[in-house]
Amino acid sequence: MAKKVGVILSGCGVYDGSEIHEAVITMLALDREGAETVLCAPDVPQMHVVNHLTGEVVEGESRNVLVESARIARGDIRDIATVEGDELDALIIPGGFGAAKNLSDFAVRGADCTVHPEVERLVREVHGQGKPVAAVCIAPAILARVLGDESPALTIGTDEGTAGALEAMGATHQACPVTEAVVDRERKLITTPAYMLAQRISEAAAGIEKTVHELLAMA
Amino acid sequence: MAKKVGVILSGCGVYDGSEIHEAVITMLALDREGAETVLCAPDVPQMHVVNHLTGEVVEGESRNVLVESARIARGDIRDIATVEGDELDALIIPGGFGAAKNLSDFAVRGADCTVHPEVERLVREVHGQGKPVAAVCIAPAILARVLGDESPALTIGTDEGTAGALEAMGATHQACPVTEAVVDRERKLITTPAYMLAQRISEAAAGIEKTVHELLAMA
Repeated sequence: MAKKVGVILSGCGVYDGSEIHEAVITMLALDREGAETVLCAPDVPQMHVVNHLTGEVVEGESRNVLVESARIARGDIRDIATVEGDELDALIIPGGFGAAKNLSDFAVRGADCTVHPEVERLVREVHGQGKPVAAVCIAPAILARVLGDESPALTIGTDEGTAGALEAMGATHQACPVTEAVVDRERKLITTPAYMLAQRISEAAAGIEKTVHELLAMA
Repeated sequence: MAKKVGVILSGCGVYDGSEIHEAVITMLALDREGAETVLCAPDVPQMHVVNHLTGEVVEGESRNVLVESARIARGDIRDIATVEGDELDALIIPGGFGAAKNLSDFAVRGADCTVHPEVERLVREVHGQGKPVAAVCIAPAILARVLGDESPALTIGTDEGTAGALEAMGATHQACPVTEAVVDRERKLITTPAYMLAQRISEAAAGIEKTVHELLAMA
């Protein structure tokens, strides 16, 4: 039986959704290791729409997180509200500002952030069932918010401000090079910096591939 | 000196733009082989916008090919009108309906299609300078239209209707499994079926990685 891994997307594009490279590399690594994916996203409006050519917010435009995530998923995606922890063997959250703008409000509120209730529920269910959970790039902020009372070891790379916010939520931050991952074996959490540090797509890929390998080894 | 490879994008999403997996896998393969990429796209409106969750055209919505392609490029992309063949060692066009809707009108007109003038110019320049050109998925239709009078050997996989349209434009179609590529060594053209046939992302990746390897070996 192939292992089933939930992948939580947050839109389609680094500045207002899922970081596309991270999401695709995650899917490719999971497929190459023989896992099945259950792609999902919340059915809510994005915090905003960013023109990725100029970097500027597009005033008056609205896009839906689930609908835009479906671009990365080639249409094969579910509303996260319909996904149960019971059906998964593991869970992974790629990065991009969508993790900090749509799955949570970490980009705006930092250590005072809240997490979308269905994202929080699914993380708690999978983690509570003793299954591993991974997060990439800025998405470890979600794990810090939801699981901070367990003092998990997490990384977002080396950015001191962001690391401080994770620690304020209860996590123990560990600096980590882009091609590696931090593994909290006791709590079954794996995190990697990816584009928090990556200068090239191959650097992000190296860390994500290690993360996926650890995730499946623990599942 | 790293080889510089032009990558022509056509939006962001399989049904109305570049196939995202194919584009990212192309970028990753190029980076892992030590090449630099010059990402580019035409600065024109998309033919239409498709809701990738439902598969339906969104009436009244308009998106720009260059702006949406910038999502895949993380902002590092140029208007194709500014890219000269002289600055490139090779060229590759990922697939997705965008290649047949935005870079050309093959999706609507089949063998009677025309290609966006700047796309045609760049393909002719790079090819005319004796440098290799690759195309993925449905994008070989563009090569058939632009270079059909040279009777190039190309593949779009095994679909007979599409293969017939390529032959009507002058190409010689060769059936090809998803994990392989067709190499026309005389004309320095490499093509692979990817999601014309792929059932899994790893299948598309295998063919694209071989395509990129051949492309750089010829560059």
